[in-house]
Amino acid sequence: MSAYIPGLEGIIAAQTAISMVDGANGRLIYRGYVIADLAEDMSFEEVAFLQGVEHKLERPSIPLAIHATASFPTILAMFHRRQLGLAPVKPRADLGHAANYLYMFDGKEASPERVRALNTYLVLLADHGMNASTFVARVIASTDSDLASCLVGAIGALKGPAHGGAPSAVMDQLEQIGTAENAERWMREARKQKVRFMGFGHRIYRTYDPRAKILKALCAELNPKFYELASKVEETALMILHEEHPERPQATNVEFYSAGVLQAIGLPKEYFPPTFAVSRVAGWTAHVLEQSANNRLIRPQSEYIGPEPRKPVPLAERG
Amino acid sequence: MSAYIPGLEGIIAAQTAISMVDGANGRLIYRGYVIADLAEDMSFEEVAFLQGVEHKLERPSIPLAIHATASFPTILAMFHRRQLGLAPVKPRADLGHAANYLYMFDGKEASPERVRALNTYLVLLADHGMNASTFVARVIASTDSDLASCLVGAIGALKGPAHGGAPSAVMDQLEQIGTAENAERWMREARKQKVRFMGFGHRIYRTYDPRAKILKALCAELNPKFYELASKVEETALMILHEEHPERPQATNVEFYSAGVLQAIGLPKEYFPPTFAVSRVAGWTAHVLEQSANNRLIRPQSEYIGPEPRKPVPLAERG
Repeated sequence: MSAYIPGLEGIIAAQTAISMVDGANGRLIYRGYVIADLAEDMSFEEVAFLQGVEHKLERPSIPLAIHATASFPTILAMFHRRQLGLAPVKPRADLGHAANYLYMFDGKEASPERVRALNTYLVLLADHGMNASTFVARVIASTDSDLASCLVGAIGALKGPAHGGAPSAVMDQLEQIGTAENAERWMREARKQKVRFMGFGHRIYRTYDPRAKILKALCAELNPKFYELASKVEETALMILHEEHPERPQATNVEFYSAGVLQAIGLPKEYFPPTFAVSRVAGWTAHVLEQSANNRLIRPQSEYIGPEPRKPVPLAERG
Repeated sequence: MSAYIPGLEGIIAAQTAISMVDGANGRLIYRGYVIADLAEDMSFEEVAFLQGVEHKLERPSIPLAIHATASFPTILAMFHRRQLGLAPVKPRADLGHAANYLYMFDGKEASPERVRALNTYLVLLADHGMNASTFVARVIASTDSDLASCLVGAIGALKGPAHGGAPSAVMDQLEQIGTAENAERWMREARKQKVRFMGFGHRIYRTYDPRAKILKALCAELNPKFYELASKVEETALMILHEEHPERPQATNVEFYSAGVLQAIGLPKEYFPPTFAVSRVAGWTAHVLEQSANNRLIRPQSEYIGPEPRKPVPLAERG
């Protein structure tokens, strides 16, 4: 029995061939490919295939994994149109995954530029080692439960603000700051009131998140208005955080520039977290297949810190 | 970074005051009370209160935890009646939790004997350390997600056959065996074909599961027909398993006699796993409150075992 480590930090909970988060060197690798090499030249479909491909198991199976991954944007786009009282738009067989998401969402074909940006976003966020939602999917898979249960559990974790539920919070904070000129004054005031800067810090990366780097360049290209404000806010946040804790490595995380890219693509901010799920489902399904292929129930211990055994007062002896 | 331990076996994933599984001594303790002292003299409501009581946090909150725990039997009973085309039956304020479940299920008041048996079952299964479903609930809670997401994830894990999804399988196997006289012949033949005996073995207990002991006595009292067959099957299973692996401690787990108790209560076998959830939701909600009260994102590491980085072939260069 080992000592209790809060958050299981540093504990290896699974062996995986799907992705490596190389925090010390700021690298993310998918099955032997560095993320920067995949972000622009590979389609999300290829990356999803790459992640799931090595498994032959039939329960949960590759066809089910493909079905789940394909369903996410269709469900979201239908939900969106229903909210607006619009008729649903069926996917088109001649469009790729990213193009179909935007087509079903808007009811018209998106520009190649928007499609390419969404594809890059989807590729970048498809997997990230043993993050909380992926870990939930693997724990559920370890009980021999079904794929849908694994994915529903993972969604429940992803929506938490400490995981994937916060990218719209980046946008909210930038809206409050308003202008680049206003950034430093607003942010110093905010820190006095213990307000957290949204989009900074990550448990694993000790250098710049490689995904944030690619998304930052994409923001500069596609969303110059956002970029002007965001890059100033980033610079100021890193300066203030360094002043407060010079000993801590501080870095912009993937959520910060995700917000600007998703805005440029034209998605409403309440669709930022579910669009994260549209990408990450490729990783979740791959991890469920990997867990199922060589399964052992994930069942850790707890350390009891309650009172020592004592006798209860039976019902009959109470007033 | 520690070494990879499959299934996180022996790794402490949380500190908890809610329950202690004392595997070496075959004890289960809820906040300082030995399970045997609670099983008959305490109502499930008191046990649920005991588990959740020490937390004051308002998101997830005690009122939400009570609401969720109260809802489970109502939802199940309504579902059951709807399946049969019957009108739903509202809970009655003058009945306790176990009595209301059976009342809403059947549309008439259950005998005190059935109510008492169900209460004992609910008390016994309400919490059990860091089992997979509870662990899922805590990982989801650690992302600051909502209580409903934690519970839905936990249900997804509980339904897995390696966790809570197998108690009806005990009943299926006993039905196949048919009679006590047939037990040894059937079971030796089954082992030749690598059929697993349902209801035996547990990762933690090295002696008799204290819950199984209480449920066994309840079975003998309420379900003598089941008990005659089941006790013979148990005896034979333990004998055969010991012959095969004399070095392994083999023990009857909680699922084995649960089946007979739930049958005596009058629940159909497809309601055995969800009735487990009716009990365990008390533990899940307590663990979510405990996790939220002193939170740290549960985010372990993975060990990458995929290929070393290589360059992908860009889309444009492919045929």
